[in-house]
Amino acid sequence: MTMHTLTIVGVGLIGGSIGLAAKRRGLAETVLGVGRNQDRLDQAYSLGAIDESCLDLAAAARRSDLVVVCTPVDRIAEDILAMVPHCRPGTLLTDAGSTKGTIVASVEEGMIAACGLALENQTASAKPQAVHFIGSHPLSGSEKQGVQFADADCFQGRLTVVTRTPRTDEIALERVVTFWQKLGSSVKIMDPLEHDRALAATSHLPHLVAATLVGILPHDWHDLTATGFRDTTRIAAGDADLWCAIFAHNRDALLGALAPFAATVESFKKALLDSDWGTVKELLIRAKKVRDSLSQ
Amino acid sequence: MTMHTLTIVGVGLIGGSIGLAAKRRGLAETVLGVGRNQDRLDQAYSLGAIDESCLDLAAAARRSDLVVVCTPVDRIAEDILAMVPHCRPGTLLTDAGSTKGTIVASVEEGMIAACGLALENQTASAKPQAVHFIGSHPLSGSEKQGVQFADADCFQGRLTVVTRTPRTDEIALERVVTFWQKLGSSVKIMDPLEHDRALAATSHLPHLVAATLVGILPHDWHDLTATGFRDTTRIAAGDADLWCAIFAHNRDALLGALAPFAATVESFKKALLDSDWGTVKELLIRAKKVRDSLSQ
Repeated sequence: MTMHTLTIVGVGLIGGSIGLAAKRRGLAETVLGVGRNQDRLDQAYSLGAIDESCLDLAAAARRSDLVVVCTPVDRIAEDILAMVPHCRPGTLLTDAGSTKGTIVASVEEGMIAACGLALENQTASAKPQAVHFIGSHPLSGSEKQGVQFADADCFQGRLTVVTRTPRTDEIALERVVTFWQKLGSSVKIMDPLEHDRALAATSHLPHLVAATLVGILPHDWHDLTATGFRDTTRIAAGDADLWCAIFAHNRDALLGALAPFAATVESFKKALLDSDWGTVKELLIRAKKVRDSLSQ
Repeated sequence: MTMHTLTIVGVGLIGGSIGLAAKRRGLAETVLGVGRNQDRLDQAYSLGAIDESCLDLAAAARRSDLVVVCTPVDRIAEDILAMVPHCRPGTLLTDAGSTKGTIVASVEEGMIAACGLALENQTASAKPQAVHFIGSHPLSGSEKQGVQFADADCFQGRLTVVTRTPRTDEIALERVVTFWQKLGSSVKIMDPLEHDRALAATSHLPHLVAATLVGILPHDWHDLTATGFRDTTRIAAGDADLWCAIFAHNRDALLGALAPFAATVESFKKALLDSDWGTVKELLIRAKKVRDSLSQ
């Protein structure tokens, strides 16, 4: 699968890593970086993450075989829908957003609407029916931002979720799965909303909790933080705008994850108040057992 | 300050690191390891963390210049009070416990009682008035356990809290401060209860929260945990008995730290329910600002 043009929209840490990884593995003749800021595209070029850059989504769409949109979650659907009418038949679009339900639904609805419009107008140029979108989420980010942190091994040994819905084209799905696998990632196929419920528990709630721990820390005690605190709260250094958009996209699942969290914190609190050390120890043993089963 | 005998009671990760660091820096002619289990002491010896081992607290006390008790927090005070009557005048005792209020109060009260008893009995051999205890807490642990994880650089660039109370002997305090500094640590002198309030926020509450996040994670989603979740919950792999004892010692301060935590989680929840993204972003920005000010 050496394609002509792999287009990356939003060349930051993830987009840049895709470019580096794809170039190292020879997945495309040309990696085209698309963004709003020429300076940042130039930086991506100088780091070897892209071969060419472009500020125009439509122009990029016209020459793309595969597009990966790596913009913030609240911009992904509009970026994809802006490209779709300009794509050649057979072009495949995917993304790297941390939420999937809202994005996949918006894109699928937008593409159906565009398809209807094209049929009405009898325009042959816009063939959205031959252009497919598959949602993706590589679980490979960090609290850092920017192409300077991009890494060709970013996906090696990591997991990428690829979403399937009743409208998903199976051949397109298979192509996207293969793409992530070629970047070194393993792939799990999930329903977008199931992804969002899981990621609320494994990523969005931990972010909220880390932000809370660090946000309530009085200044006088900053020097009393050791590696434990720093590990626990590292993700709270993530960009506030990006995370606010993720929370907004995944509001319901995040609220859903908050309920068992609050209930268990309450169990700890009650056990502490009652000096019920049997319950405290049980809660700690259960957590240790799960944590020990995960890798470092 | 090259002393004759530095005694380490409990030669695990911290005790072993003290031994390695003290030996590398030539702080003592002999590092004596004391424990209940000869095999573990032999392991510490073979790793170079101690020069000699001993299973008898009283025998060790008789030959010690400085004793550092590194047993679990619920055993420190009794270990120290068991040694005090056997110490020569001038012997200095300290510890490495993660809590300070209960330990320091128990030891100080125990030493006063022993002193009164010695005066009553007119025994010259027990001179607790010439034996001093100073509480310490090197903020250098990890979720790991055992002397095999000991590291001579464990204290390098870290902070050790040394406690002062109205009963503290200033010369003894100064000696303990110098000891930790010689191991590479910087030192902060604090009241034991102020230490406990701070550590509730920087260590004990984060542990409770990490244990909660990992404890509520359904098994099916384990593979959807990435570095963020693993960093956030790493400390939950700590030993359940050790942490239960820490929670028991510091119950009041931990409950005290839970209150602002629960209030901020509630603020997040309310803002999510209201789709009040201004408040969500404000909470995230505040957290990021604090987290950015701490080191990695």
